[in-house]
Amino acid sequence: MQNLEVIAFDADDTLWANEPIFNQAEKECMEILSKYVEPTKLSKKLYETEVKNLKFFGYGIKGFVLSLIETAVELSEQNILGRDIQKIINVGKDMITHPVELLPGVEEAVTDLKEEYTLMILTKGDLFDQESKIARSGLDSYFNHFEIVSDKTENTYSEILNRYQVNPSDFLMIGNSLKSDVLPVISIGAYAAHIPFHITWEHEEAEVDRFNHSRFFELEDISQVPELLQANH
Amino acid sequence: MQNLEVIAFDADDTLWANEPIFNQAEKECMEILSKYVEPTKLSKKLYETEVKNLKFFGYGIKGFVLSLIETAVELSEQNILGRDIQKIINVGKDMITHPVELLPGVEEAVTDLKEEYTLMILTKGDLFDQESKIARSGLDSYFNHFEIVSDKTENTYSEILNRYQVNPSDFLMIGNSLKSDVLPVISIGAYAAHIPFHITWEHEEAEVDRFNHSRFFELEDISQVPELLQANH
Repeated sequence: MQNLEVIAFDADDTLWANEPIFNQAEKECMEILSKYVEPTKLSKKLYETEVKNLKFFGYGIKGFVLSLIETAVELSEQNILGRDIQKIINVGKDMITHPVELLPGVEEAVTDLKEEYTLMILTKGDLFDQESKIARSGLDSYFNHFEIVSDKTENTYSEILNRYQVNPSDFLMIGNSLKSDVLPVISIGAYAAHIPFHITWEHEEAEVDRFNHSRFFELEDISQVPELLQANH
Repeated sequence: MQNLEVIAFDADDTLWANEPIFNQAEKECMEILSKYVEPTKLSKKLYETEVKNLKFFGYGIKGFVLSLIETAVELSEQNILGRDIQKIINVGKDMITHPVELLPGVEEAVTDLKEEYTLMILTKGDLFDQESKIARSGLDSYFNHFEIVSDKTENTYSEILNRYQVNPSDFLMIGNSLKSDVLPVISIGAYAAHIPFHITWEHEEAEVDRFNHSRFFELEDISQVPELLQANH
């Protein structure tokens, strides 16, 4: 990484906690639905509905809430009451306005890295949610560029590098998802560092038990990024 | 406009029909809800709910469907049945997969303009919906740049011009909304052409009865754009 120029960070569960907000919302909906259905049934059915609906709704809270409602209608055998539907929508609104909690070490790491590198937030999801979270995170002044994309494929990364005229060999992506933040990045010849988050949405899990590659780094937390870069300078 | 470099087009109701899809969906929901509520009550309440929810959901079909559900719950006095909620979600899925119908003259106009100018799609709304519509429109090969934004303010336009290093005096925005496509563009010193669409969402209407400005043009349809540029060359 001698010529490293641009470091891009995933946002959800890399810079701030996100999956816990979805898990908490799911728990609240289990509670709301407990009069209609065995709570343990919700998780499996919800996941199936979410995956089936990805092609309609993409990623993000609004699609999640629509899938929650659809799952609730189905599991309640269409008996769910209007007021419980409204409660589910309110859970969604709480998710959207939930405080953005930075993960430990994030502010220190980006303060350090912005001295030497161009920093980018490169995140997948709903445009409106992500812009709102970036603004509320207080992190926007640390970053030079913001890219919110609907999916993270090789093509997505190639187009972004092209737009900013950055060579893959000068680009490092940091994120918690092997599937979205690591595999496509390695494929196009760039560098990737994986920082696992304690919870990963099932759909983002990838089969890479012993992933070994000269352009791949496995880190425990974001505070190790500056050390990694010094070691590989 | 001697040095005009970049022409940006709004997409919904400028390149393809959009508002009719929302109106059609609203009609279908009136039908679904007719057993609970006087159909004429839906429109007004829905609009109120949509505007109130903009700060949570932003623009786009998913937010519209969530507002529809919320309105249906409220107007039915929480008596709406699960199966009717599911019907509303299905109306939303039909909207998302609705064929993208280009407006008359669009393909000819962009074919002509792309010979001489850098063309951009600059559209507001849900990232996932808009990307999908651009892909399905078949127009992507005519455009050099695509910008999907959550709102169109002076700031939005300034940032985009800055990113592409374009002077306001070299930029023309074309769209159907005075509020989003014209006023902020004129304010930052760029050119704007308004092409009204036969239906405008109430929230996009602006009070500019006799808008008169040397950088503003009122056109009847998109086929007049090439003529306008020749006349002002």
